[in-house]
Amino acid sequence: MVALNSQFVDTIPSIHPLPESIDGASGDLARGASGLGASGRVASGRASISLDSLQQLLTSEMQAVNQIIIERMQSEVALIPQLAGHLVASGGKRLRPMITLAAARLCGYQGHRHHRLAAAVEFIHTATLLHDDVVDDSALRRGLPSANELFGNKASVLVGDFLFSRAFALMVEDQSLRVLEILSRASAVIAEGEVLQLMTSNNIATTEDSYMQVIGCKTAVLFEAAAQIGAVVAARPAADELALQEFGHTLGLAFQLIDDALDYTAEQGALGKTVGDDFREGKITMPVIIAIAAASKEERVFWQRTIEEQNQTSDDFATAVELIARHRGVELTLQRAAEFGHRARSALMGFDDSPARRALIEAVEFTIERGY
Amino acid sequence: MVALNSQFVDTIPSIHPLPESIDGASGDLARGASGLGASGRVASGRASISLDSLQQLLTSEMQAVNQIIIERMQSEVALIPQLAGHLVASGGKRLRPMITLAAARLCGYQGHRHHRLAAAVEFIHTATLLHDDVVDDSALRRGLPSANELFGNKASVLVGDFLFSRAFALMVEDQSLRVLEILSRASAVIAEGEVLQLMTSNNIATTEDSYMQVIGCKTAVLFEAAAQIGAVVAARPAADELALQEFGHTLGLAFQLIDDALDYTAEQGALGKTVGDDFREGKITMPVIIAIAAASKEERVFWQRTIEEQNQTSDDFATAVELIARHRGVELTLQRAAEFGHRARSALMGFDDSPARRALIEAVEFTIERGY
Repeated sequence: MVALNSQFVDTIPSIHPLPESIDGASGDLARGASGLGASGRVASGRASISLDSLQQLLTSEMQAVNQIIIERMQSEVALIPQLAGHLVASGGKRLRPMITLAAARLCGYQGHRHHRLAAAVEFIHTATLLHDDVVDDSALRRGLPSANELFGNKASVLVGDFLFSRAFALMVEDQSLRVLEILSRASAVIAEGEVLQLMTSNNIATTEDSYMQVIGCKTAVLFEAAAQIGAVVAARPAADELALQEFGHTLGLAFQLIDDALDYTAEQGALGKTVGDDFREGKITMPVIIAIAAASKEERVFWQRTIEEQNQTSDDFATAVELIARHRGVELTLQRAAEFGHRARSALMGFDDSPARRALIEAVEFTIERGY
Repeated sequence: MVALNSQFVDTIPSIHPLPESIDGASGDLARGASGLGASGRVASGRASISLDSLQQLLTSEMQAVNQIIIERMQSEVALIPQLAGHLVASGGKRLRPMITLAAARLCGYQGHRHHRLAAAVEFIHTATLLHDDVVDDSALRRGLPSANELFGNKASVLVGDFLFSRAFALMVEDQSLRVLEILSRASAVIAEGEVLQLMTSNNIATTEDSYMQVIGCKTAVLFEAAAQIGAVVAARPAADELALQEFGHTLGLAFQLIDDALDYTAEQGALGKTVGDDFREGKITMPVIIAIAAASKEERVFWQRTIEEQNQTSDDFATAVELIARHRGVELTLQRAAEFGHRARSALMGFDDSPARRALIEAVEFTIERGY
């Protein structure tokens, strides 16, 4: 009942999930099985930081996880693996399951339990993506075909339910009530965050606090749970669990802030994402909140028409980008993300130096650098 | 991966869920809390059989269950209890949780664990209803406003996810991995059944076997799990568990067959349901399968146009009813339901006579009599 009152709720941010997992309409299982998509690298002016260390560290383990993912998305009902495969195989970075694996490694865990749990985390994420793409009657158009557009709303919902159920089945097989508790709670909070986002959509009075609460629930909670599970399987003391929760949570916030900034900056296709989706959908994210807070009377009228009334012309996105730039909306969002990234790094400092710790730190840097 | 190969799959039927749980647009929590809607009684020419015995037997326990349902559908995100309350409070019979309670009573269980589990069963059912009502772009119209029509597709999906997560949280609190296993498996099978139904929609070549598989998955599996849990909490031997599974499964099949028959017979509003929904949606159910199997060339053209091409005029439903009557579609469907009802009764015969057994037998009779 107080699910929103996470211990970290005061610090909260979230992830626009589509871009990272659907980078094109065609996905094939082989790509999914072999691991990681092309989007795991940032080639920016500032630096060339990648997820390589993390991926290399976890190569064989991620193969095991991908194997489980592919096995468990099968069904005699042909449409299910077809639709699930579209998403699962479409080159997502698999960041969340990698966090579980790396956190377990960081904690010195030697077994194999975390493979199944990492797959469960990815299934929960995939189910969320499928459900997130279901559109209302006021159907919105995206640049890329979502599963929803290809297969219909209803199929997306039902296959999401299937994956969600399979996630729980995987956890049940693990036999850990503690893990089940962590992930069932996380799932409920994610749903709350998604509903909260729905309620703030098109509302230009949305505060920064509300936004942080939304992204804390819809994104950071799963990162948090993914990291925490690593400590749980390794049976580490509560302090380590807490440190990994803080790590996952702040990384998740940073990740979503960056994602929301990119929606107003990235060149179309450069990061496998469509720019301007949030604007077209009337989603209220940090860059917009900053621009609205500092808006002139005239600018406010613009936001009212485009976001609140959803009355947009083809030039409006360019104007939005301009207004956001005028008030440093993207810059301040990235800055905020960097702060959370800093906290994520700090949370790892209680652990001994190790390849796993270094790889996780690099993953944080990668997350932040995506914005530049 | 072989989730569809239930041990009972050969015998399978399912429930058109909307009518039993939404009997009007306005629902209030008080009604939900006080228990059971008006639809728990059949006033037919043949008999006046009701769920009264079951309801009376379980009055205080159902109060406890309703209390849990109301507590656990709360959230700080106001739209969630609002939307969930619309469904939860709208006078459903709560048949599934009552089956769990009565099965536990039948097994001599004395504790309180089953209250939480019965609530979990109802949450899974409610989540399924919400997701079942999500429509595709080819939006279908219904006589009554569904949650989806009132709140939008996306809200229905997300609140369904929330309830689903809460169902798992309730099970985790119960600490029984066995129950978690049963219900996570059931959830996956339900999703498979729903997807299978989607694939048979508008396809007049759908066989009776496919239909039985659909309703076995989408409806009977939850009845089966609901009954089985009663034996599990009471720690009864495997034979009793199996008997209750058979009871739940065959009752579920009967329930769905009757529901599908009613869609071509019940007077509008008489049972709080809209007649003709299945036809308008192009759903392939038993009465239609029977009529199509026996159709003349001319009749086949009618089914092709109305069901397959979804090209319907306002007179077509009356014609469909006529054609179904000509080939005894409803009559044979009810007969099939009665056979499953008989099996459900037989499955209880290994248990000693008791008020619980008598009430469950009456519930079977009620289910069958609804069709007359």
